[in-house]
Amino acid sequence: MKGVLATIGALAALGGHPVWAQSTGECVPSALNIPEAKYPCLYADHRALFRVVAPDAQKVRVRIGPGFDMIKGPDGIWSVTTTPLVVGFHYYSLQIDGAVIADPSTQTYFGSGWQNSAIEVRADDAAFYEHREVPHGRVSQQLYHSKVTGQWRRAFVYTPPDYDSATRKSYPVLYLLHGWGEDETGWYRQGHVDDILDNLIAAKKATPMIVVMDNLNAVKPGESAALFAARGLVPPPSDAPPVPPSRGAPPAAAGRGAGPGAADRGAGGPLGRPTYTEMMLTDLVPMIERTYRVRPGRENRAMAGLSMGGAQTFATALTNLDKFAYIGGFSGNCGGFGRGNEAPDMKTVCGGAFADPTAFNAKVKVLFLGIGSAEGPGTRSFSETLTNTGVRNVYFESSGTAHEWLTWRRAFNDFAPRLFK
Amino acid sequence: MKGVLATIGALAALGGHPVWAQSTGECVPSALNIPEAKYPCLYADHRALFRVVAPDAQKVRVRIGPGFDMIKGPDGIWSVTTTPLVVGFHYYSLQIDGAVIADPSTQTYFGSGWQNSAIEVRADDAAFYEHREVPHGRVSQQLYHSKVTGQWRRAFVYTPPDYDSATRKSYPVLYLLHGWGEDETGWYRQGHVDDILDNLIAAKKATPMIVVMDNLNAVKPGESAALFAARGLVPPPSDAPPVPPSRGAPPAAAGRGAGPGAADRGAGGPLGRPTYTEMMLTDLVPMIERTYRVRPGRENRAMAGLSMGGAQTFATALTNLDKFAYIGGFSGNCGGFGRGNEAPDMKTVCGGAFADPTAFNAKVKVLFLGIGSAEGPGTRSFSETLTNTGVRNVYFESSGTAHEWLTWRRAFNDFAPRLFK
Repeated sequence: MKGVLATIGALAALGGHPVWAQSTGECVPSALNIPEAKYPCLYADHRALFRVVAPDAQKVRVRIGPGFDMIKGPDGIWSVTTTPLVVGFHYYSLQIDGAVIADPSTQTYFGSGWQNSAIEVRADDAAFYEHREVPHGRVSQQLYHSKVTGQWRRAFVYTPPDYDSATRKSYPVLYLLHGWGEDETGWYRQGHVDDILDNLIAAKKATPMIVVMDNLNAVKPGESAALFAARGLVPPPSDAPPVPPSRGAPPAAAGRGAGPGAADRGAGGPLGRPTYTEMMLTDLVPMIERTYRVRPGRENRAMAGLSMGGAQTFATALTNLDKFAYIGGFSGNCGGFGRGNEAPDMKTVCGGAFADPTAFNAKVKVLFLGIGSAEGPGTRSFSETLTNTGVRNVYFESSGTAHEWLTWRRAFNDFAPRLFK
Repeated sequence: MKGVLATIGALAALGGHPVWAQSTGECVPSALNIPEAKYPCLYADHRALFRVVAPDAQKVRVRIGPGFDMIKGPDGIWSVTTTPLVVGFHYYSLQIDGAVIADPSTQTYFGSGWQNSAIEVRADDAAFYEHREVPHGRVSQQLYHSKVTGQWRRAFVYTPPDYDSATRKSYPVLYLLHGWGEDETGWYRQGHVDDILDNLIAAKKATPMIVVMDNLNAVKPGESAALFAARGLVPPPSDAPPVPPSRGAPPAAAGRGAGPGAADRGAGGPLGRPTYTEMMLTDLVPMIERTYRVRPGRENRAMAGLSMGGAQTFATALTNLDKFAYIGGFSGNCGGFGRGNEAPDMKTVCGGAFADPTAFNAKVKVLFLGIGSAEGPGTRSFSETLTNTGVRNVYFESSGTAHEWLTWRRAFNDFAPRLFK
């Protein structure tokens, strides 16, 4: 008996326990979980343990990275430990007997057009976007009525720490856009833009500024919203009266995809959506300049965005250089951001905005191109082509990250200190 | 042939179509759906049509009201049309082969301790909480560090329309609490508190005020958070090392309940949670008075809450009448709010706060008790007992509503105009 116990002890010491064999150290709940939820949790090597209650299900899968089939335990709870995840913020979903749904254990985040679950693998450099003991700005909900779309719209507005007390001071403004399938909540919830700026301002690295986080979806009555709609919206019954085409027919596929392909991600195309530009210049900018203490003029106005929001930024700002002096695209621009590496024609790309580099450089104080190192060489080669053509620009690469929020937090952290100097 | 067509036409006119037989008129998407989602939708008689993609599931159910089993169509999509729903905002969930999850078609709302789906049946009197063309206040996220809990906390703060322009004006403050399983987002998302106040202020019915929406969950290190945790949190593997009791063992049941029972709803008990009171008076109130332009003194300070937040309000305010002159409980107070109708002993109930009605009336400018008519007679009889004892109070009843947000929006709309007059 003593020998058996000793053997068990030795096995345990060597990690021989049947369930915890694969676990080294404590599994720490993801910071994005709902209060008190212990799963999903993360090991020090970035493997994640997911657990889901689905006692009568036949097949349960967690859709993160390559996807992982879960295994049902005797208690009716399904579990899986993944391979190590990349650092940063990841949307994910569960698939339970064919239904793609959010994990009820996490807070939800609007991405891919619906309320996704998400998990955060803390990065070593996380301090730059974490909440610290520094003076804090405020993020406010700002509704406004759009003449262009005929609808009420919502933006979130960051005002810097001294905004409420320095009541005679006015500020420059950055207009900041989310990506495909996201909304105006993305930059302050997934992006931590308030904490990044609070920390930069406290360190005297960034000029205090107002940041306007708007919703990229703007369609006029009758315009199709198809590009902005979620994948996998539930279609109407097949014997129901057909939906008039003007209201936008839902996609035929019944599954809910993880997101668009690379080609879709920068959608909006080289020239973006003219309706957004019109709405922004007609409704949003005047409302902001009427409502907040804003410093006037193009040298106090910047625009940036991620992915589809980067494409929209280039489309809007490059055609309105009398209004914007600072332009940023994070994993999205007008000339190449993904896997492609063909050199574009600098005379015609981006609507010919770079055809006269000297004139361009005289107007644009910062042209910023950010990308994750795992996203491919397209943005780097676009930046190099711009440089070779004589167009001054800044290239930023986030090490080891993909088309995800850690790339965009890091890009913003590099971009913001360059503004309004 | 003509006869057959005529018969079909007659059947159709009588509602004889096999699928649409039960449908009268258009099914309008719920206002809480994600963009472009057509389901759930509502008929004019308040029946709701739910549709869910779950091609391989054996059993799918929508958990709203009594609950409704869904039926699988040939396209693998499950559907059900409910019986008529009560007007207002309803949390709901789906059950797919035993897994209780949110409907991916709706925005999510924090309730019952997790991110629920929800549906809104528009009330005839909805205009009072809808966004209209009036001057708007701002809702801002406000983080603060608590010495009592040792943690960063988050509140949302409503500032009235003239706050940013009238920079020398100061304002009275209402502290407003959510209910069990909810959080600091409840009052401005589910409750529309900003629109209600904007509309009341525009109509000159309410005094412009600051409203602080805090999170009721406040525990010191080592204190159990059990009462505040979600039902049905996924427990750890049964062969995992036991969780130390000080961190709060998760509930044993694996299912996710629709919410607590009536007894639970006012939890916090007659005296509420002393830790919240301590945190509020030590950390929250001083932070608000340091950060915003606040009019000092008890006559400029109100406290109210719903359900568990009502119980907490009475516990905090009745023991700190030197700090609060206005007290409101919506479906939650210290003396009776639910189905019970036993008359409490006025000498001892609520910690003896009403033992001297003359002294109480001299201090408390408004004592407000709100309830939904479907919640039972407890609050009405408590109000009557208070009145008979000589304690001045206001009783408000929301017609035809239960323990839900339409009750609380209406109660708030009646309460707010009584403050700071």
